[in-house]
Amino acid sequence: MPVRKFAIADAVFERSPGQDGDVFVGNLVDQRHGAPITIGFGRYGPGQGLDETIAVDDVMIVLEGRLSVSSEAGTVTAGSGEIVHMPKGAAVSIRAHEEGAVTAYVTYPHWQEARD
Amino acid sequence: MPVRKFAIADAVFERSPGQDGDVFVGNLVDQRHGAPITIGFGRYGPGQGLDETIAVDDVMIVLEGRLSVSSEAGTVTAGSGEIVHMPKGAAVSIRAHEEGAVTAYVTYPHWQEARD
Repeated sequence: MPVRKFAIADAVFERSPGQDGDVFVGNLVDQRHGAPITIGFGRYGPGQGLDETIAVDDVMIVLEGRLSVSSEAGTVTAGSGEIVHMPKGAAVSIRAHEEGAVTAYVTYPHWQEARD
Repeated sequence: MPVRKFAIADAVFERSPGQDGDVFVGNLVDQRHGAPITIGFGRYGPGQGLDETIAVDDVMIVLEGRLSVSSEAGTVTAGSGEIVHMPKGAAVSIRAHEEGAVTAYVTYPHWQEARD
């Protein structure tokens, strides 16, 4: 498997499964590629978000905008250049602020397989 | 393990092991915390870098500046908001451009344990 570089223009976005909001995900590396991790970009419309129990360890790096993640540990808010770690099993409510948000994400193991 | 948010100010930087350049790493989540992944921030001085055979799957998200990664697959260059995936086993030469670089990284499994 080669070293690869990804820009957001490389991602093919689809609506994040199991919800109707304007939250889109675009995997770039996943179970199709032989690595143990999934890598992608996420895009949240203004004020959009989702509620989910996280089935994998999920790391979001905020690239643009701002979002808040609420869990039983309270609410954290992350802006550009900040990282949120959502450990496997956490029940979270993710909500973008009024400017929306763009994220990079890395999950272990593959989030799509964990959902199936 | 709770949901946590990290800013670069949370990282305690140390020189990346095994080299003398101005390349610093600051783990925020690692083998001490019970998750399967390591999360941290990296900082490269202008023109600084390192040569290494990657012992783990390593994802770098460039937050500031620009860096190039050379491997047998060729050279990729990533700037702010772009991602480089260095799969386990890849022999890479990472070099920041003249403005240096700041990265977020996620590795599976823990890079410090894989080096030991």
